[in-house]
Amino acid sequence: MAQQEGLSGWLRLTLTPGIGGETQRKLLAAFGLPDAVFAAGRLAARAVAGERVDALFDFDPGEAVDRSITWAQQPGQHIVTLGDADYPASLLEIPDPPTLLYVRGNPALLARRGLAIVGSRNATPQGMQTAEAFARTLAGKGLAIVSGLALGIDAAAHRGALAAGGDTVAVIGTGADRLYPARNRELALAIAEHGAIVSEFPLGTPAVAANFPRRNRIISGLACGVLVVEAAPESGSLITARLAGEQGREVFAIPGSIHSPVARGCHKLIRQGAKLVETAADILEELGSEAAPDTETDASTNDGSDPVLAALGHGPCPLDDLVERTGLPADRLLGELLTLELAGRIATLPGNRYQRLG
Amino acid sequence: MAQQEGLSGWLRLTLTPGIGGETQRKLLAAFGLPDAVFAAGRLAARAVAGERVDALFDFDPGEAVDRSITWAQQPGQHIVTLGDADYPASLLEIPDPPTLLYVRGNPALLARRGLAIVGSRNATPQGMQTAEAFARTLAGKGLAIVSGLALGIDAAAHRGALAAGGDTVAVIGTGADRLYPARNRELALAIAEHGAIVSEFPLGTPAVAANFPRRNRIISGLACGVLVVEAAPESGSLITARLAGEQGREVFAIPGSIHSPVARGCHKLIRQGAKLVETAADILEELGSEAAPDTETDASTNDGSDPVLAALGHGPCPLDDLVERTGLPADRLLGELLTLELAGRIATLPGNRYQRLG
Repeated sequence: MAQQEGLSGWLRLTLTPGIGGETQRKLLAAFGLPDAVFAAGRLAARAVAGERVDALFDFDPGEAVDRSITWAQQPGQHIVTLGDADYPASLLEIPDPPTLLYVRGNPALLARRGLAIVGSRNATPQGMQTAEAFARTLAGKGLAIVSGLALGIDAAAHRGALAAGGDTVAVIGTGADRLYPARNRELALAIAEHGAIVSEFPLGTPAVAANFPRRNRIISGLACGVLVVEAAPESGSLITARLAGEQGREVFAIPGSIHSPVARGCHKLIRQGAKLVETAADILEELGSEAAPDTETDASTNDGSDPVLAALGHGPCPLDDLVERTGLPADRLLGELLTLELAGRIATLPGNRYQRLG
Repeated sequence: MAQQEGLSGWLRLTLTPGIGGETQRKLLAAFGLPDAVFAAGRLAARAVAGERVDALFDFDPGEAVDRSITWAQQPGQHIVTLGDADYPASLLEIPDPPTLLYVRGNPALLARRGLAIVGSRNATPQGMQTAEAFARTLAGKGLAIVSGLALGIDAAAHRGALAAGGDTVAVIGTGADRLYPARNRELALAIAEHGAIVSEFPLGTPAVAANFPRRNRIISGLACGVLVVEAAPESGSLITARLAGEQGREVFAIPGSIHSPVARGCHKLIRQGAKLVETAADILEELGSEAAPDTETDASTNDGSDPVLAALGHGPCPLDDLVERTGLPADRLLGELLTLELAGRIATLPGNRYQRLG
C-alpha cells in the first residue's frame, strides 16, 4: 500500500518518548513527512522545536516500530497517519489532531458523519435504555455513533448502533490491542467486526487514568455533535462536551430528575447553552439533515476560510488526495494552491505534497 | 376609610357588563376617577371609548355594587382599586392591570416581593413534593409565594409557603366569595387566614374556563419570577410563563425525565430560554438577593424610563401616594411631575391626582 511507505518514520516520530503531539506537528509543518525530519537532522529539528527533539535522534524505538508494522499487517488492523488520504477529515478540523491512529475494524467509518453519545459509567438502567434507543434511531438514520467503550452509557450507545445494523466507532484510551474494560470485551470484539475501534496510543498502552480525558477530544472530533445522556457534574463526559464546544461541535444533553445525581451534569450543560433534547428527532432537526453526507464534504463546506485549506488539514497532503477531497478539477486546484502559497498559508513539499502553515 | 370614598363608582365601572378592562383604563386615563366619568356623561365618555360606554349609562348594577360594598365591610375582606395607595405596585407595571381586586386576607402581602410557582393539576407525587419544598424554602427567605389555588402543583406551593409560616397569595379565577375547587376548600381558608386570596372577578363569578388563563397575568404580574414545576406542553402554566416573559419577569423551569409527559412543558420553556432550576438557591441567586425588598422600591428601580412614571402606574394617583411611593421630597416631585406634564406624558386631575397618558 503506497500510503504506508513512510510508515516507519511516522511510527518513529510518535513512539519516541517525550515527543508530544505539538512537537510532532511543529516538525511536520516545517519538514513535511517524518522521514524528512530525520533526514534534516538534529540541528535543523532543534531550530524548529527546541532541544526536546534530541530524543528523536538519541532514542531508537525500533522494536516498537517493527511490532506496530507487523500489527498493522494483520487483517482488520490498520494504522492511519496524518499524511494518509483516509485520515478522517473531521479530525483535521481540530487544533490537536492525533498524528496517527491505530484502527481495528473498518477505517472508512471514520469518514462517516458521526454523532458522539457519551455519559456516566454509573448510569441508571433508564439512562442506558435511553442511550441505546437514541443510538439505534440515529444509527438507523446513517449517523456513525461514536463513543468511548466505557461501561454504562458508552456501552449502551455502541450496542444500540450495532442493534440497528449501523456504524459505530469506539475511541479508546488504551492501546488498540488492549481492550478495556474487560467486561466490555465481547462488545469490543463486535465493534471491531462491524465498526471500528480507534486509539492514538501506542500498542500495549495499559489503562492509565490520564489518557482518558485526552482521548475525549477524538470522540468529539470525529463527530458533528455530542449527546450527553447521563453525567455527573465533574465527569469525563463534561470534558468531552467542553472539547466539543471548543471544536465547534453541537452539544446536546438529556435532562432528568433534579433528584438524580447523574442528571446534574446534563443540567449544567443545558445552563451553559447545550441543547436540551427529548427525542432523536430533536437531534436530527438540529443537525439539519436526516441524510448522512460524508464528513469530507462537510469539512470543506463548514470551513469559513477556504475549502482547499480545510481539505488540506494539518498534515502534509498529496495533490491526488486534495483532488479527491475537494472535488475540484486539478488545474483549478493548482491555481488555488498557488494563491494560498503566495499568501504564505501553505508550503509545497517534495513529491507534490502540500502542507498548511501555522 | 378615605380611599374607599369613591368605591361605588369603581364598582359601577367594573360591574357593568360589556365594559372591559381596556375601556375602563381609557376612561380612567381621560377622566381620572370613575365618578368623574359618570359626571362627564355619556357623550364625553363616548368620545373617549366609543359607543360601548353606553352600557355604563343605560345599565345600573346598583344591587351588585351594594352587595360588594357590604362584602368589603366584613373583617378580612377588602376591595383594592387602581386608585388606592395600596394597589400592588408590581401590577402597575403590567400592560393590563386589573381595575380592582377583591382580597380575602391580608392585602399588604400583595406589596411583598413575590415568586409565582405554578404547574400541572395532574402533577406527580414527586412534582408536588418538589413544589412544596421550593415554596417552603423560598417563603422562608421572605418571598411571597403566588399561585392559582388549583389542584396539584399550585396547592402544593401554597402549602409549602404556609408550612414555612411564610406569605402566600392565591390568585383565583372565580369570585373571591367562591372557593374553587372544592377539594382545596380547607387550604383556601388557611390562605385567607394567613395569606391572601385575590380575584379581579365580580363576587359570585362561578368557575368558567375562559377566566382562568386571564387570571394568569395577575399571578405572573404579582411576582418577579415564575417557576414552572411540572406542566404539559399546552397548558395554563405555559400561558403564565409566556405572560411572565412578556411582563419582563424571570421564567424558571424544573427539568424532568424525557419520559414524563408533565416534564415536556418545562423542557419546552427551557428550550425557549427559561432558566433551568435544580434548587431553590438557583432561584435566589438569579433574583440576585436573599432579602425581600418591597415591590414598590423594585418597581421604581426597574422602570427604565422614569421612576416617577413607574410609581404612577396606570391609574389616577394622589400626590401623597406618589410622595410615599417615590420617596422624593414633595417639591422635587412636583418639579418632575411638571416636566412630565409638559412632555405630554401625564395629566393633572382634579384633587391633586396624576394620571399617566398612553
